[in-house]
Amino acid sequence: MSNDRLIYLPLGGAGEIGMNCYVYGFGPQDKERFIVVDLGVTFPDMDSTPGVDLILPDIQWLEARKDRIEAVFITHAHEDHVGAVGHFYGRLGAPIYTRAFTANIARRKLDEYGVGPETVTTVSAWPETTKTGPFTVGFLPISHSIPESSALVIDTPGGRIIHTGDFKLDETPGVGEAFDQDLWKSVAKQSVKALVCDSTNVFSQHPGRSENTVGPEIEKLFAQQKGMVVATTFASNVARVKTMAEAAQRAGRSVCLLGRAMRRMVEAAIETGVLADFPKVISAEDAREIPRENLMLLVTGSQGERRAASAQLANGKYMGLSLSEGDLFLFSSKTIPGNERGVIKIINQFSELGVDVVDDSSGIYHVSGHANRPDLERMHDIVKPQIVIPMHGEHRHLREHVKLCENKGLQGIVAVNGMMVDLSGNAPKVVEHIETGRTYLDGSVQVGALDGIVRDRIRMALNGHVIVTVIMDEQGDPLGEPWCEIKGLAETGTSNAPLVEVLEHDLGQFLMRAADKTLADDDKLEGELKRITRQVTQSEIGKKVEVTCVISRLS
Amino acid sequence: MSNDRLIYLPLGGAGEIGMNCYVYGFGPQDKERFIVVDLGVTFPDMDSTPGVDLILPDIQWLEARKDRIEAVFITHAHEDHVGAVGHFYGRLGAPIYTRAFTANIARRKLDEYGVGPETVTTVSAWPETTKTGPFTVGFLPISHSIPESSALVIDTPGGRIIHTGDFKLDETPGVGEAFDQDLWKSVAKQSVKALVCDSTNVFSQHPGRSENTVGPEIEKLFAQQKGMVVATTFASNVARVKTMAEAAQRAGRSVCLLGRAMRRMVEAAIETGVLADFPKVISAEDAREIPRENLMLLVTGSQGERRAASAQLANGKYMGLSLSEGDLFLFSSKTIPGNERGVIKIINQFSELGVDVVDDSSGIYHVSGHANRPDLERMHDIVKPQIVIPMHGEHRHLREHVKLCENKGLQGIVAVNGMMVDLSGNAPKVVEHIETGRTYLDGSVQVGALDGIVRDRIRMALNGHVIVTVIMDEQGDPLGEPWCEIKGLAETGTSNAPLVEVLEHDLGQFLMRAADKTLADDDKLEGELKRITRQVTQSEIGKKVEVTCVISRLS
Repeated sequence: MSNDRLIYLPLGGAGEIGMNCYVYGFGPQDKERFIVVDLGVTFPDMDSTPGVDLILPDIQWLEARKDRIEAVFITHAHEDHVGAVGHFYGRLGAPIYTRAFTANIARRKLDEYGVGPETVTTVSAWPETTKTGPFTVGFLPISHSIPESSALVIDTPGGRIIHTGDFKLDETPGVGEAFDQDLWKSVAKQSVKALVCDSTNVFSQHPGRSENTVGPEIEKLFAQQKGMVVATTFASNVARVKTMAEAAQRAGRSVCLLGRAMRRMVEAAIETGVLADFPKVISAEDAREIPRENLMLLVTGSQGERRAASAQLANGKYMGLSLSEGDLFLFSSKTIPGNERGVIKIINQFSELGVDVVDDSSGIYHVSGHANRPDLERMHDIVKPQIVIPMHGEHRHLREHVKLCENKGLQGIVAVNGMMVDLSGNAPKVVEHIETGRTYLDGSVQVGALDGIVRDRIRMALNGHVIVTVIMDEQGDPLGEPWCEIKGLAETGTSNAPLVEVLEHDLGQFLMRAADKTLADDDKLEGELKRITRQVTQSEIGKKVEVTCVISRLS
Repeated sequence: MSNDRLIYLPLGGAGEIGMNCYVYGFGPQDKERFIVVDLGVTFPDMDSTPGVDLILPDIQWLEARKDRIEAVFITHAHEDHVGAVGHFYGRLGAPIYTRAFTANIARRKLDEYGVGPETVTTVSAWPETTKTGPFTVGFLPISHSIPESSALVIDTPGGRIIHTGDFKLDETPGVGEAFDQDLWKSVAKQSVKALVCDSTNVFSQHPGRSENTVGPEIEKLFAQQKGMVVATTFASNVARVKTMAEAAQRAGRSVCLLGRAMRRMVEAAIETGVLADFPKVISAEDAREIPRENLMLLVTGSQGERRAASAQLANGKYMGLSLSEGDLFLFSSKTIPGNERGVIKIINQFSELGVDVVDDSSGIYHVSGHANRPDLERMHDIVKPQIVIPMHGEHRHLREHVKLCENKGLQGIVAVNGMMVDLSGNAPKVVEHIETGRTYLDGSVQVGALDGIVRDRIRMALNGHVIVTVIMDEQGDPLGEPWCEIKGLAETGTSNAPLVEVLEHDLGQFLMRAADKTLADDDKLEGELKRITRQVTQSEIGKKVEVTCVISRLS
């Protein structure tokens, strides 16, 4: 009997949507060889991560075992799957394998960190496979909202795993490979140990719609317009970008791409041969010279991102172009939960300009890139795995996906980030809980989510900040009055005197009367100064503030 | 010919959903007498108003003319209509008129500010009217999602205005007055100058559904449950609260109300006779002793509010009660845009506990309290006003509502906060733009939105905060090294030395070499210290930080 075991360990993406990072291991316990599937990021928000630039998985566990990592495989080029390759290459150093389009994007990211293009090996689709350690990995094409998305067929001595990546079942995806049921059936002929499966849309009851249902509707919409047409979608949704560009062309409009991501994605798609016949695009300079009824702008910012082209146009102007009464702005996209405020703000700004905004509320100008509930069931039926492990979902999605499986007699397990699952036996078994979490890219440094750095920033934002400076002379006595500065607080409170003066007065009184023992002890003195400061602000302005004390001792 | 004019001036609620405050004036220019309709609040968020407790309209314009205010009329008891009465009474001092249920709530709010109950006059429904200055005002019952919501019939020498307040057209509202079309038609027999009209649901294409469609569905759902049932809705939606309590009762469950607002609203409804036959409720203590299959909790927190009962139950326990595998949690409510993150967090926490969560995504467990597009048209048709002024909406809603009017030949005007509209002539005319905005209740003080206080807090949250302390001796020379404290920043940057040490070193170098002229000038010195601090943090950690300099000069 073999000592080897086959393990699955999500470090990101299981219990959340975003920041995907999955580890598969095979070998004797604590000597397993690993492959990593996807290195993604997720995005910060003001509520929980103000000032943070990007959120990355916590890969400390993996880093401590980097000599056991065979390779990293990237399923597709969305940020939540490929976004961390540049930030982590220095820490993991493993070779990266992916298909051409994704490789193009990954290499650009690595280049920003000075890592050469040879780090990424471009592989072809199934039946080509890559052998690395005990793993043989093939990229099985699957439709999604970005070119060349692939499931991974991971063969190990412990059995075959199919890791779906993000997917939908689209037989007419517009750009890229259609879902090929026969191909999938042929792969599933060999018994599949585990299907590790996208769960995003498990709550959507109807079968998903094909990308090709969107084009005719968009074309109708564009054909009716008399003013300028502006449309946004995820730049990486190359099929949609192409659909809209072609609709514009047929409506006699020149196409102008605005926003770095929009130009870069089309460029990558053309470079890698994914996109063959994209309409000719014009520059922003040329666009300014064209009558608005003959122009369409394809812009970034479908999620209301502050610095994207859509937000700048809503503010008035971008690259010399501006919208006005009678123009149309189309969101060919879904607003990701949490981004509503930003999107609604833009819609209202356009409304003030007299621009008509059309979003996906009618359901006809956008389709999802993820498999809906009936599509998930179809996938289960095609693959017929011994066990389904839902991933790419919040806890509610994973749990619902397992319920869906169990209702039809399929084995399923909810495994969230940090749960190491042993797949060697007939039933999956959680064998270890790894400490996982999030790493923040903050400016140019990576900091831990639990370091307290962001917590302090949130506290300053909620409570304001008082700085108390006290100078102690050579004898250990206070030299003059304490000095206070406030930041983010009302200048005047209930007593109608400036808050700073009330603070300095009360702190000064305390210093005058304080015992020598207190004055001599920095910690004790600081504790008292903070307590009094909070007491004063509570009574003056009703807030318990953050306090920083600077005690300088002359010597 | 009269010199009098009839004006409409929204100070809040037009161009946003929330913080309603509308002014009507009649009289000679700049001598008009005023009534104020509604004094509402809106709620802060971390993105734009961290640490703020409540957002109120900016009433400076009104306050400067308080001697011309006849009275305040409150249409209904939702926070965005009545929430500011307590905070503003001291500044406006005008008597308040409203119906019994709303008066009950308003008096509780005034009481918190030590203002007596006599400030609020309880009035009866139309045909009773209140005469005050040139205005005669009647409360015309209209259905909404709270008891005794009323439109105002405002008669002036300049004509009749109907201010709808928030409404839906519900002939079977469960609790409170049904929409009475005949009554409304009779009021509209006299020609109506302006219909100032709710716009919230102008984008909802189907006629709104009645409150009484929800009960049977909820009853079916509850009847199927084997574990504990917990449900949330807006506490002020007394009809829904009653529906759910009755459904529980019929399913053999005792009802326990959790959360202050839930108990207070039911109490107010019973006190004012709005609610006659509410099922007997039990205390949390008693609820703990009851088998879970015989219990229903009705809890606050439908919007995922952090401190509400729902969030606390999701965290594990509230008042000794906790949920577990097989229990049901029902959101009989819609998530207001911007609150998604909080609600989703709770749903995932419940998922981790094994609790099944049902929300309104099926559309059967909740109905909106606002008139949908066809209902708005029906309202226009009943009232047949000379002009429609959309209110209670963001810009996009107001604009769409005007378009809806114009498409059927009705006159409409988009008037946002601060636009004073003269209604005296045949066509409405914008005659003045009043500076409006928002006032923040921050702790116990009211601060202006543009005071820079919250801006500073946001900056500290985004950029972190460095405090630089420098002591200058009696000769004007630096005494020792500068001292730095950091808050909300990584401790170590790219040079691998502590950030504080790098800062102190570089600032010390600067001080050593600085010209006497610079050292002698606080502003100049501070400017340089800030510049160098930002330069160091930018190169060490990639962030341009907030800096506070404390320069102490010994003398």
